[in-house]
Amino acid sequence: MKAARYYARHDIRIEDIPEPILLPGTVAIDVAWCGICGTDLHEYLDGPIFVPAPGHPNPISHEEAPVTLGHEFSGTVAALGEGVTDLTVGESVVVEPYIISPEVPTGEGDAYQLSHDMNFIGLGGRGGGLSEKVVVERRWVHPVGDIPLDQAALIEPLSVGHHAFVRSGAGAGDVALIGGAGPIGLLLAAVLKAEGLTVIISELSEARKDRARSTGVADHVLDPRDGDVAEAVRALTDGRGADVGFECSSVNAVLDTLLDAVRPAGVIVNVSIWGHPASVDMQKLVLKELDLRGTIAYANDHPATIALVQQGKVDLAPFITGRIALDDLVDQGFDQLINHNESQVKIIVHP
Amino acid sequence: MKAARYYARHDIRIEDIPEPILLPGTVAIDVAWCGICGTDLHEYLDGPIFVPAPGHPNPISHEEAPVTLGHEFSGTVAALGEGVTDLTVGESVVVEPYIISPEVPTGEGDAYQLSHDMNFIGLGGRGGGLSEKVVVERRWVHPVGDIPLDQAALIEPLSVGHHAFVRSGAGAGDVALIGGAGPIGLLLAAVLKAEGLTVIISELSEARKDRARSTGVADHVLDPRDGDVAEAVRALTDGRGADVGFECSSVNAVLDTLLDAVRPAGVIVNVSIWGHPASVDMQKLVLKELDLRGTIAYANDHPATIALVQQGKVDLAPFITGRIALDDLVDQGFDQLINHNESQVKIIVHP
Repeated sequence: MKAARYYARHDIRIEDIPEPILLPGTVAIDVAWCGICGTDLHEYLDGPIFVPAPGHPNPISHEEAPVTLGHEFSGTVAALGEGVTDLTVGESVVVEPYIISPEVPTGEGDAYQLSHDMNFIGLGGRGGGLSEKVVVERRWVHPVGDIPLDQAALIEPLSVGHHAFVRSGAGAGDVALIGGAGPIGLLLAAVLKAEGLTVIISELSEARKDRARSTGVADHVLDPRDGDVAEAVRALTDGRGADVGFECSSVNAVLDTLLDAVRPAGVIVNVSIWGHPASVDMQKLVLKELDLRGTIAYANDHPATIALVQQGKVDLAPFITGRIALDDLVDQGFDQLINHNESQVKIIVHP
Repeated sequence: MKAARYYARHDIRIEDIPEPILLPGTVAIDVAWCGICGTDLHEYLDGPIFVPAPGHPNPISHEEAPVTLGHEFSGTVAALGEGVTDLTVGESVVVEPYIISPEVPTGEGDAYQLSHDMNFIGLGGRGGGLSEKVVVERRWVHPVGDIPLDQAALIEPLSVGHHAFVRSGAGAGDVALIGGAGPIGLLLAAVLKAEGLTVIISELSEARKDRARSTGVADHVLDPRDGDVAEAVRALTDGRGADVGFECSSVNAVLDTLLDAVRPAGVIVNVSIWGHPASVDMQKLVLKELDLRGTIAYANDHPATIALVQQGKVDLAPFITGRIALDDLVDQGFDQLINHNESQVKIIVHP
């Protein structure tokens, strides 16, 4: 079967590889669509990061580069391994793409995303969505009912937004300020709107501001060049400030703005991945008793995330900005995202 | 009456000033003992900070320098203003030294410490504990029963530790790592021990390490020069790491250690006051889903803090390392704390 294989930085190849083997307790999936993630770009430009470098196999998957890429994917069940009785061949599903040690508890509420040596299907081994077929443990397969399969490929990044929302502790009626309207900032905004929050987005890029407006996920879109964002947020909230802030840019000026714009006893969730330490104004953190919280990926978020889409509370269609074939992954997909990043949200790939 | 008055940096004078006037709803207190706080030293060396500079009166007290110093004090009730019926003349009390706008709600659980323009009695006006008498609104007066009045002067900084404990969300059975064993680190440790936590303290100073050991507030005392503190903490916790960390040093290396030593999904409370931004390893905050929380002073903490002392769960006597007269405040008190800081915990002043 055809698959996109990561060999090394700037070296991704579309190859023919053997089909994965169906084992007891696993599910074979015909991949329908797979999104390209910022993480995939980082691996291409600066990696290997999550991908285990040659000679350094992942301690759980025991695999090393080359590995198949793609962790944001949807598909249909092709076959069920021994013991899997609660899914149907032909059913639409998405995958929560974890590689986690079997020793980690699996009960509801467990923070399995924080387990030691955690990695992702499509980065750390075990195949990926940028291939025709993948075989996944039953635990990580989530049925999506009648959600169209192209939109379903966006459930994974939407779950990242859902988990950030859960980490924030915010709820209906709260005011959220999102710093940065890249793919995760926009999808997080969609979750927050669906959950009944008022959403303010701060963003510099014209294309991203337009998208935040046209998708309807933001109640207010602010541009830092138009004036102090924290002051504008206070003006919108009777002087109080935002209840919660979400850092989705890994830009220090944005974090500074959130520390200023969030009300006393408020929460800031850092959703972005930083390549360097942040400078944090501890005086604000202390005198306002703020909480600065990290969030990574998702844990027990997929069912609620899927329900938001099924109930029509989140419309994923406007976030799909490109559709390409697997053979065009590097030339069209990666190139678009690297060179025309701001006009794209999600490019999805059909294998 | 005699009072220590802050005029400007390096200019504190012991003067005779008029006695304060008893108003309806207030309580007149004969001060017994008043501790010298790190904040007082900062005002002396680098201020005015909390003290309103001449020409810039505090918007709530409407006072400006010179103001009477001292916010960690105990005393006996000398007289009750009209309408105050639930205290007795001669009763031992301490003061929760807030200057807060009357518009702020006063109900239990309200975060009144975060109200706009908040300041402290003994810094922002309204007299202070470094004087013979003080008159305080009933709301801020807390009876201490038979707690000796010298020890009662330490209830205020102990309440800072109690509030940091509450902010952490930690409880009995948890393992806490405290970075820095200055007065607040030690008193926080006393609260944590009283609440049933296992306490690990990291500290460089020999004198402070000795004090942490001799007071019995630490289960383990670590010195960063003896090896990696985070590794030592993991060795003490079956590889897990501390449940909660408390930054009590405003030293970036200590914050780095806490980010490393606290377990995934753990909490770090920043108790210290930083004069500069901190460098924070966001990658650790994100991948371990840590909470970095600010804490300031106290709110509704005094009753529980006083109870810990009354029940014998915290013994404040070992933290009193000096007793001086008001006339010796600068020459003996401030000088000791500035030049022989590490061998002192609390110097208390008798006016």
